[in-house]
Amino acid sequence: MATGDLEHDCSIARTLEVIGDRWSLLILRSSFRGVRRFDELQRDLGIARNVLTDRLAKLVDHGVLERRLYQQRPDRYEYRLTPRGVGLSPALVALMRWGDQHLCNDNGPPLVLVHESCGEPLDQRFICWSCDETISPTAIRSTPGPGAPRTARAES
Amino acid sequence: MATGDLEHDCSIARTLEVIGDRWSLLILRSSFRGVRRFDELQRDLGIARNVLTDRLAKLVDHGVLERRLYQQRPDRYEYRLTPRGVGLSPALVALMRWGDQHLCNDNGPPLVLVHESCGEPLDQRFICWSCDETISPTAIRSTPGPGAPRTARAES
Repeated sequence: MATGDLEHDCSIARTLEVIGDRWSLLILRSSFRGVRRFDELQRDLGIARNVLTDRLAKLVDHGVLERRLYQQRPDRYEYRLTPRGVGLSPALVALMRWGDQHLCNDNGPPLVLVHESCGEPLDQRFICWSCDETISPTAIRSTPGPGAPRTARAES
Repeated sequence: MATGDLEHDCSIARTLEVIGDRWSLLILRSSFRGVRRFDELQRDLGIARNVLTDRLAKLVDHGVLERRLYQQRPDRYEYRLTPRGVGLSPALVALMRWGDQHLCNDNGPPLVLVHESCGEPLDQRFICWSCDETISPTAIRSTPGPGAPRTARAES
C-alpha cells in the first residue's frame, strides 16, 4: 500500500477518519450510555466546550449522531445515535472487553454488558455461518474484495 | 461519572489511553496484516519516523507489540503482535466492518475477512450463551460490575 492511498483501500482507515480520535470514541461511549445533551456530555467527559462542539459537528456530519431540538427559547439540542451510530457498538464493546481483560484491577470490570431479556453476560465472537462455528482471531485470513484496487486483485 | 474519573471506572477509556489515537490503531492494522519492520511500517503508513518511534514504544510498553532483534550489525528490530495484541482483533474487525458497510464506494469492500479453513466470509456477533442465540446491539444493557465504584453498585 503506497503512502497516501490509505483511505482508498482500507475500511479501517476510512472509519478512523470519522471516529479515530479518543474524544470522538468517548463521546460515542457516553451516547451509548444515554448521555445526550451538550452540558451533560461536557460534564461527563471533562472535555473543552470548543472540542466537544467540533467533534459533535463531525459526528453529525457523518450521520453517526442526530441533532434534535428538545427545548425552545433558548433553543437547546440533544445528540442521539442514528442507526449508523448504533452500528458502531461492536467496536465500542470490543474496546471495552479488551480493557476489562487487560487493564482492570483485581476487583474485575467496572461495568458488565448483559443480554437485556435474561440478564446474563454477553459474549462477542467471530462466526463462520458456513461451518456453523465460532472462530478464533488466528483462524482468519483476508482476501481482496470487490472494491480492491485492480493490482491487489491481480496479485491474489 | 465525574470529570477526571474517566480512567477509573471505564474500560473503554482505559483502552483508549493505550491505543486511542489514529496512528496506533493504524499501526495495529498493519501488524495484523503482517507488516513488522520499522521501515515497512513507515512506508505502509506514510507516518513521520519520530511519531512511529513514539507509538511503537508505547505499544511495546503496554505489551501489545513485542520488539525482536532480527538482524545484527547493525541491530534491527521487528514488532510482532503479542497474544494481548491479538486480543484487539475484534475491535479492529469491528471498525473495518463498519467502514465496509458505510464508507465504501459502489464496488464493495476493498478487503474481505474469511474463515481460513473454508474461505467463507466471517461474521461478528454478540452472543448470549445462556439463551444460545445471537443478539442485536439494541438488546444489550449494562450493569455495574465487581470493579464498579461503591456508589455505582449501591445505585443499581
